Amino acid sequence: MNNTHNKTGFARAHTNIALVKYWGKSDEDLILPTNDSISLTLRDFYTDTEVTFEKNIKKNKLWINGSRVDDSKLLRVNRVIDLVKKKFKINQFASIKSVNHVPTSAGLASSASAMAALSGAAWKAATDLAPDLRELSKIARIGSGSASRSIYGGFVRWHRGIDHDTSFATPIPTKNFDDLRIITVVVNSAAKKILSTNGMKSVAQTSPFFDSWVQQANQDVTKMISALEIGDFDKLGMIAEQNAMLMHSTTLSANPAFTYFEPATLQIINIVHHLREDGIHCYFTIDAGPNVKIICQQNSVTSIKNKLQQDFKQDQIIETQVGPGITFSKIEGNHD
Amino acid sequence: MNNTHNKTGFARAHTNIALVKYWGKSDEDLILPTNDSISLTLRDFYTDTEVTFEKNIKKNKLWINGSRVDDSKLLRVNRVIDLVKKKFKINQFASIKSVNHVPTSAGLASSASAMAALSGAAWKAATDLAPDLRELSKIARIGSGSASRSIYGGFVRWHRGIDHDTSFATPIPTKNFDDLRIITVVVNSAAKKILSTNGMKSVAQTSPFFDSWVQQANQDVTKMISALEIGDFDKLGMIAEQNAMLMHSTTLSANPAFTYFEPATLQIINIVHHLREDGIHCYFTIDAGPNVKIICQQNSVTSIKNKLQQDFKQDQIIETQVGPGITFSKIEGNHD
Repeated sequence: MNNTHNKTGFARAHTNIALVKYWGKSDEDLILPTNDSISLTLRDFYTDTEVTFEKNIKKNKLWINGSRVDDSKLLRVNRVIDLVKKKFKINQFASIKSVNHVPTSAGLASSASAMAALSGAAWKAATDLAPDLRELSKIARIGSGSASRSIYGGFVRWHRGIDHDTSFATPIPTKNFDDLRIITVVVNSAAKKILSTNGMKSVAQTSPFFDSWVQQANQDVTKMISALEIGDFDKLGMIAEQNAMLMHSTTLSANPAFTYFEPATLQIINIVHHLREDGIHCYFTIDAGPNVKIICQQNSVTSIKNKLQQDFKQDQIIETQVGPGITFSKIEGNHD
Repeated sequence: MNNTHNKTGFARAHTNIALVKYWGKSDEDLILPTNDSISLTLRDFYTDTEVTFEKNIKKNKLWINGSRVDDSKLLRVNRVIDLVKKKFKINQFASIKSVNHVPTSAGLASSASAMAALSGAAWKAATDLAPDLRELSKIARIGSGSASRSIYGGFVRWHRGIDHDTSFATPIPTKNFDDLRIITVVVNSAAKKILSTNGMKSVAQTSPFFDSWVQQANQDVTKMISALEIGDFDKLGMIAEQNAMLMHSTTLSANPAFTYFEPATLQIINIVHHLREDGIHCYFTIDAGPNVKIICQQNSVTSIKNKLQQDFKQDQIIETQVGPGITFSKIEGNHD
């Protein structure tokens, strides 16, 4: 029993965007996806989390950005903490303090970085054993599917697996992507009408296209890995853009049909197409929301921003680049 | 040989919108569709056409709204005329005068009404035999797939068939739809960037979802016929709306992906959803273009127009209702 040390664990994890989307679960409880997915970890958006297992509390307690979160909203947090407690035979509850460095206006999901950081901090609070990243990826997955990928930096593959033990992320060997840039265009920072978890469930249950989506997405993973291995930026961009469109295609085919696109989403898609016609190498991807992420290289950033600024405000345009994996020391953790 | 009578044939045919879409060909030359489709013929949009087989001309000549059309653009017109000439052993060329009563701003395809009227007028110019509507439907199909449906009024089914002789439209028995109204909201009256014929070809060749689309569309036809037979307006609307979304879903799944939606298209989709939440029974359908057609009943027209007028100009909002089939007499033909 390692249940009286009151040690505090710390972790910083960065959020990610999917280049081949996670869209559909084969197991709702274990959060096993129907298809493999590939993500890119982002430098400027991350979550810092501290966890302490404490003797004198009777349930887990969470503070985000200094504010106590209602206990009824800790469902996913409790699942992660329970897993760590079980693994290391802890019988105390956790006090959790989390700070999100994902600008609320960015319209980026913070659940990936939050659940990854929570897993890492809980591990460090529970044991002196060095964190096993593959194990952490599985634990994070139980909190939020895409969090499994935020354990690693750079390009990451989430292997769908067939049970808890086989569904985890691994880093992908790549070259030539140091100058890759992601420009997020924020269309709407309001909460989504249809949460991604509900959207993918509706699609999986009602779309006549779902089985073909799964098949195609798994093929896209293979193609993307080859593009990453040879360092082919345009191939990466084309596969990511097509895969995003395919995912959004499935929402229109659900019953009832729905879409995450808003008018400005289409406007940005058109801008990217026009930029490409003008010889600027850029592509887009869109998660389960209206905001668009433009994938480009450093030498195109200025042209793209100039074009976007004709229609969007400066604070709707956020640039970032490839980010690192999870870290466990407050000092080492200051990447930026 | 019936080749010296210089008789003029006249026909008026109305355009139609598809409630279950025609989207994909199994034979490009014969224009055989991959799935059955269902349309509604529209009262206020039609084409008047006169055809005369003339001794002293050496090729077909076409005037639209009084202006001579370049001979290089008569490909589809020549196909229709050739078919009629072959059928009735005519060896003269045709002089064709066509007037489109489809407001150019309406953003509605006029090829359906144009090719249907051309077929009827050519038949009347060629022979004194009373027109056989099923034959006319096949001839019109050779000019433009959706024209096969414009031979009949009201609700029409195009049977996909397996060859020229089995691919034609028939009227569908219905009840309770006299108060049905269609409100077209014109987003963009400019020519389409991707013609529907090219769009459907790209989808059929590249979308992993195409086979499922065909299967689902054929099921939608069966469901729609049952809704029409029992006179269930809401069922009609729901099936039409889902089918339209499914068709547009396939464009996002093509490679390269594309969409006919423009920002305002999504705006109108949202308006329809909000109207429905407010208890107004209305649904939308969208053809291979950005304009939205709202399907409703007479008693909802005022509420819907009032709502639309908050965002769109009066001349972008065009109301019509169920229209008649092809007619062959100039006097009888004055429906409006």
